[in-house]
Amino acid sequence: MQVPSPSVREAASMYGTAVAVFLVILVAALQGSAPAESPFPFHIPLDPEGTLELSWNISYAQETIYFQLLVRELKAGVLFGMSDRGELENADLVVLWTDRDGAYFGDAWSDQKGQVHLDSQQDYQLLRAQRTPEGLYLLFKRPFGTCDPNDYLIEDGTVHLVYGFLEEPLRSLESINTSGLHTGLQRVQLLKPSIPKPALPADTRTMEIRAPDVLIPGQQTTYWCYVTELPDGFPRHHIVMYEPIVTEGNEALVHHMEVFQCAAEFETIPHFSGPCDSKMKPQRLNFCRHVLAAWALGAKAFYYPEEAGLAFGGPGSSRFLRLEVHYHNPLVITGRRDSSGIRLYYTAALRRFDAGIMELGLAYTPVMAIPPQETAFVLTGYCTDKCTQLALPASGIHIFASQLHTHLTGRKVVTVLARDGRETEIVNRDNHYSPHFQVLRASVASALQGDVLITSCTYNTEDRRLATVGGFGILEEMCVNYVHYYPQTQLELCKSAVDPGFLHKYFRLVNRFNSEEVCTCPQASVPEQFASVPWNSFNREVLKALYGFAPISMHCNRSSAVRFQGEWNRQPLPEIVSRLEEPTPHCPASQAQSPAGPTVLNISGGKG
Amino acid sequence: MQVPSPSVREAASMYGTAVAVFLVILVAALQGSAPAESPFPFHIPLDPEGTLELSWNISYAQETIYFQLLVRELKAGVLFGMSDRGELENADLVVLWTDRDGAYFGDAWSDQKGQVHLDSQQDYQLLRAQRTPEGLYLLFKRPFGTCDPNDYLIEDGTVHLVYGFLEEPLRSLESINTSGLHTGLQRVQLLKPSIPKPALPADTRTMEIRAPDVLIPGQQTTYWCYVTELPDGFPRHHIVMYEPIVTEGNEALVHHMEVFQCAAEFETIPHFSGPCDSKMKPQRLNFCRHVLAAWALGAKAFYYPEEAGLAFGGPGSSRFLRLEVHYHNPLVITGRRDSSGIRLYYTAALRRFDAGIMELGLAYTPVMAIPPQETAFVLTGYCTDKCTQLALPASGIHIFASQLHTHLTGRKVVTVLARDGRETEIVNRDNHYSPHFQVLRASVASALQGDVLITSCTYNTEDRRLATVGGFGILEEMCVNYVHYYPQTQLELCKSAVDPGFLHKYFRLVNRFNSEEVCTCPQASVPEQFASVPWNSFNREVLKALYGFAPISMHCNRSSAVRFQGEWNRQPLPEIVSRLEEPTPHCPASQAQSPAGPTVLNISGGKG
Repeated sequence: MQVPSPSVREAASMYGTAVAVFLVILVAALQGSAPAESPFPFHIPLDPEGTLELSWNISYAQETIYFQLLVRELKAGVLFGMSDRGELENADLVVLWTDRDGAYFGDAWSDQKGQVHLDSQQDYQLLRAQRTPEGLYLLFKRPFGTCDPNDYLIEDGTVHLVYGFLEEPLRSLESINTSGLHTGLQRVQLLKPSIPKPALPADTRTMEIRAPDVLIPGQQTTYWCYVTELPDGFPRHHIVMYEPIVTEGNEALVHHMEVFQCAAEFETIPHFSGPCDSKMKPQRLNFCRHVLAAWALGAKAFYYPEEAGLAFGGPGSSRFLRLEVHYHNPLVITGRRDSSGIRLYYTAALRRFDAGIMELGLAYTPVMAIPPQETAFVLTGYCTDKCTQLALPASGIHIFASQLHTHLTGRKVVTVLARDGRETEIVNRDNHYSPHFQVLRASVASALQGDVLITSCTYNTEDRRLATVGGFGILEEMCVNYVHYYPQTQLELCKSAVDPGFLHKYFRLVNRFNSEEVCTCPQASVPEQFASVPWNSFNREVLKALYGFAPISMHCNRSSAVRFQGEWNRQPLPEIVSRLEEPTPHCPASQAQSPAGPTVLNISGGKG
Repeated sequence: MQVPSPSVREAASMYGTAVAVFLVILVAALQGSAPAESPFPFHIPLDPEGTLELSWNISYAQETIYFQLLVRELKAGVLFGMSDRGELENADLVVLWTDRDGAYFGDAWSDQKGQVHLDSQQDYQLLRAQRTPEGLYLLFKRPFGTCDPNDYLIEDGTVHLVYGFLEEPLRSLESINTSGLHTGLQRVQLLKPSIPKPALPADTRTMEIRAPDVLIPGQQTTYWCYVTELPDGFPRHHIVMYEPIVTEGNEALVHHMEVFQCAAEFETIPHFSGPCDSKMKPQRLNFCRHVLAAWALGAKAFYYPEEAGLAFGGPGSSRFLRLEVHYHNPLVITGRRDSSGIRLYYTAALRRFDAGIMELGLAYTPVMAIPPQETAFVLTGYCTDKCTQLALPASGIHIFASQLHTHLTGRKVVTVLARDGRETEIVNRDNHYSPHFQVLRASVASALQGDVLITSCTYNTEDRRLATVGGFGILEEMCVNYVHYYPQTQLELCKSAVDPGFLHKYFRLVNRFNSEEVCTCPQASVPEQFASVPWNSFNREVLKALYGFAPISMHCNRSSAVRFQGEWNRQPLPEIVSRLEEPTPHCPASQAQSPAGPTVLNISGGKG
């Protein structure tokens, strides 16, 4: 949409020659670790206009990501990088910039004021820069972890990618402040567990659940709801794989999509195609919540494990399906039509096991609360040994995917498995969790009878004035991990909350240590009591200590919402004697051993 | 004592030529920052035999220390470095090692099992290696801070130097495990504030307070007590400087020395020269506790500021002085004689101000306690704005030195000054404090009326079974900073402790939340109550929260041990709205900008 200025055009045309010096044969570098079909199996548009497009590949052997950034319309430069939650401050950046003499590529970082600095340790390494009719391709790599405190650590879970555009040539990199630029963020799962894809059965069929020629509304956020149904008499099948179908040109707009099955209780569900918050939406659509498929931006096809499939169709299940498409349209583009959806791959030859979904974490109750103005308050929910002993099969269960869930203040979520008091594996961890990016992620773990599953959520309530209590409301909080596993069991829900008697003791303690009064009278509800706590350091710390000490009330429930038989109140907190250590990132080898070239690459004309 | 093996001798003789390549003219490098008299003003023997001797100099401009290590008898190599508390595990090391082919110098680190690894970032840089008749001199430098997580951060306060000897040539550096070596530690203050030395008055005289030909006992630890007296009718003088006198050859044995003045109440003090714990020691020596001079290993002369001196002599003060010498004799050398002591420089021309000493921190009371099995429990004592408002002169006081003090479980101590709720400066901080290295350190700070002085101590009680309460006993704890300042005021003690009423509430809370009973009956003493607390996570956390919240009882006392007038009970905790940030270490510049050579220096024969 804008013709590059001559000086930039000139500089860009030199890339081809200048870069020859630093050329690394990409194919050779990726051999062995790259899948055969494409050197960059993953891609995502970064900005809503599609000016920047990122593709990447992962070498687990080298603990390195290879990035290919396509810059369709280069002005004076671009910034690309990662930060904790998508902010342009404290970001780990690569910068392509130009001055009057040439163009440069460097590893940089922005401080808390957005001021950009060249990194003393150059961990992003340019491998190739190539000008094509499509735009400028930059190929570079970076290790997952560096030992530079200014660098972002690439981990499993959500990564907030950030980008920015430089409009004018610069005197120096240090003259950039991100606050003055056109910037943005894109959430993505950069690392994907390398799980082999099972072969599809010979009789595999497909079914497309697609939005029917939707006119994408001219507003930033739309959740589109569309109801469809399985053919009459459609028998029981197993879904074995699904993949996204995104209408060409709308790649930057379709943020996530889910297919839900409706509740079997309703004979029929009215057809509908419209925004999910529309007043026209039939009430019954609220009973379409059983997940059949979930996809989000940057994800590829999802494969069920060889031995298991997700049952749908047949007697005892609803014929009605709801497709939900989240359109993210920050530029408020109007008039765009879309028919995106999900393609289900299913088989009539039922696999050995039905897959199931289990809820771990905190029960939905106000007794679990987060004081206001906390930057990182942790609540923890348990699935105890007593419950898994009773409800899991003797051979245990295989967890193959997991979807984390909180409401608006959730910032991190992790589920850890503990056996005999020792944490043994991470079921799912997201240190940069966002409630706006709740994706189903492949994960591998096995839980046996007697194991404990511990789900912890970290919340930020800096913008809240009152305590945030647990509950269903969007301004209340949840801490849930929907675990996908097989073989399916009766256990649908394995969650906990603090014992209400101990919370009552807490409110009485608050009364005794503080001059203000908290009403502990029987007519006051728990949210009311929390609302009257004066949040000084003592009351905060003691609440934290209470949650880490008081006995719990367990919800160890069957699908029918009935508890398994047993005593589930005033249960002791599981005792954990050994924690999993945070993995220390591997530092890249020193310059003496590393093949890396100079830290700042001058790719300007005439010097190549 | 052992002739080096031929191969090592050979290798060592090559240093002179090989090093020529890397030669840096030391004098040039140090110009501007080094004092004229010597390029290495500080020295300390490392091992008790004196095989290793360290000299060093500091460039504050470069934030770098220049080390000169003299290895008197080189076998197959040496290790030298630093660690948190003097352990050889998790240590930051330089290693000089030999294999069959040559000798090498490298920056290394040891892991938690003592296994040595070459550092991926080489921050110790060899500048010169020189063989002399005395031994091998290694000259190398290191920045205070590197950004390598395996590196030690050199800060103000105590540094635990570690060393080890390699007896045999190695196949590789990685084959070293420090647990198999002859190793040791030496505590030292590496960084010294660069405070200009005031000129001494023209009439300065000296007085030597020295142990009279002591036969150093053949045991690891001896505190020697020696009583002497000022001449009859010795008038009031000001001490303006003092320096150590260490008997030649005993440099590694004399650990620290202090000169105390006795209490004026006693007409006479019996003369004595013997171990301080001797049954023969006269009781009255316990009343000789007013510090006149304090020196410890690695320290140089101590200068009073130009405007102030420490008064001694004259009416109203005792003529009797006690010298205490700590002999540290780990090899149990016998038959060694010593006459070490301290030389006082004093003037009859009294300076404008008398210097004074003030006690900050925690009052000596059992209400401040540390639960057992804590690795880093913090207790904090306050000198409140109300007390400084009342007791300090309008012009404020100048703090010029400070001596931190705890009993056996103290691990860190810091005093911070806060003005209007904002921390503004560190009076003294020691992140590697050791109760075995309580040195008087120069320090610069000014406190005004209304300022708050906050002293925090971090304790490790991993080896304790019961709570450690505050008190005078060696198994009880203290948290004190003896601050040296001028002009002298009436304020001798500005310390705090938690309000006893709130501690009583704590014991009652413990009763209500736990099945075990803590006796809160009137006849139970506070130490008894603490001894009956079951130390679960809740009781620990709530105690911590209590100390961070409950009002305090202030001790704002005159020299006469009488409180200043006012209400000192149930005072609010000072509110601190802004904390001083931990300084982030400056990372060394990247290899592109740095003049550093290769990371591993091969100084073997034939290749130089």
